[in-house]
Amino acid sequence: MEITSLTNSKVKEWTKLKEKKYRDITNTFLIEGDHLVNEALKRGIVKEIISIDLSFLKENIPFYLVTIPIMKKISDQVSISPVIAVCTKIPEKPINGAVCLLDNIQDPGNLGTIIRSAVAFNIETLILSLDTVDLYNPKVIRASEGMLFNINIIRKDISTSLKELKENNYLIYGTDVSKGTNLKTLEFPLKSAIIIGSEGKGMDEYLKKECDSLINIPLNNNCESLNASIAASIIFYEMRN
Amino acid sequence: MEITSLTNSKVKEWTKLKEKKYRDITNTFLIEGDHLVNEALKRGIVKEIISIDLSFLKENIPFYLVTIPIMKKISDQVSISPVIAVCTKIPEKPINGAVCLLDNIQDPGNLGTIIRSAVAFNIETLILSLDTVDLYNPKVIRASEGMLFNINIIRKDISTSLKELKENNYLIYGTDVSKGTNLKTLEFPLKSAIIIGSEGKGMDEYLKKECDSLINIPLNNNCESLNASIAASIIFYEMRN
Repeated sequence: MEITSLTNSKVKEWTKLKEKKYRDITNTFLIEGDHLVNEALKRGIVKEIISIDLSFLKENIPFYLVTIPIMKKISDQVSISPVIAVCTKIPEKPINGAVCLLDNIQDPGNLGTIIRSAVAFNIETLILSLDTVDLYNPKVIRASEGMLFNINIIRKDISTSLKELKENNYLIYGTDVSKGTNLKTLEFPLKSAIIIGSEGKGMDEYLKKECDSLINIPLNNNCESLNASIAASIIFYEMRN
Repeated sequence: MEITSLTNSKVKEWTKLKEKKYRDITNTFLIEGDHLVNEALKRGIVKEIISIDLSFLKENIPFYLVTIPIMKKISDQVSISPVIAVCTKIPEKPINGAVCLLDNIQDPGNLGTIIRSAVAFNIETLILSLDTVDLYNPKVIRASEGMLFNINIIRKDISTSLKELKENNYLIYGTDVSKGTNLKTLEFPLKSAIIIGSEGKGMDEYLKKECDSLINIPLNNNCESLNASIAASIIFYEMRN
């Protein structure tokens, strides 16, 4: 189908997906660009393809040929993407393998980068606290480089998740900048779950009490702490590599 | 001195510092917030303090009491900072200790995060290629958490830098996602220099030829590469920790 009017109802519908509220209501989200659309096609979650170019036409998937102003209106980026797709949110699976829990991560770039590193270093399950930034925020998807399609991501209350992990014999690890065991000396069992605290405050004291062990990464005295996505990635690297 | 007019010449001068061109002409830059201003004061590079609050007054440093609209105009952030300072750019020192060369890093968040991790893991010198994002970009400073004051940062052509490093008996390391030696098995001498390539393309082939050794971080097959700041930080962690 061809759409040329900026006020077309489909265009309005797509534009609304920039907001979390509408992503939640419709259970869908947008992705931009060749690479991400191909990753989503592999996962079979593409509902609609929107493009200025017929070459993105796929069998059995509704296709909308649109104008550049329409692409600009729907897009989250400054430079125009050749293709945008509406996708169905990825279903959550049960907890499995090495786990990372994110407590109140606010920066979409950090969440996306953590997802990318988690896939790189074989973390199987990522649990997002209820107050962590939306997984389907366009900046998260972009920073993840499409890796959100390759890992089980669950949004769940941290306390409930910890209870479930403990019942399943997981060892819970936290991070601490001033005390804890040096990361280099730790041996992680397969059933390990690591908690990463928020950017501003680090890990909450009440969560530290839930941990079997606290991890410390020794830092130069001039530097108080690492960026949350860096700390998470270095721990993943040591855990599963 | 008190300033209330948005069209005051000092306000215009400060606002211009949002642009690289004016930072270069005046050899100054802006920093925002309590934490960064304190770090800059320790380094003795603060030229002027601008605030809505007299509590930020310091002896021997020109102080400007301004209005909230003026702070909003100068600021790079959405939420208002209580204090902004004009600083003199930090002088470059000769190459020393462990070195990292950044080739064409474009994302200010990545550069800031690399600076923060470099300080954390005792990298002494950071060399920025001429086409790497401006060190004094407000987003770089913010992501560095003020760590740019605690490391020697040099902007210099990569080829000239490599020549100088080799003359000083440095071993040059590059990164390679498909070949190279596993990072975990490497022992780095003190005179090590690691090159980090740009976000999009990774390391240039011509630079790989300049390296004594290529480093590989083994990744899951689903993940092509790590974010540049993550790769750099994991290498720093292994190099100097």
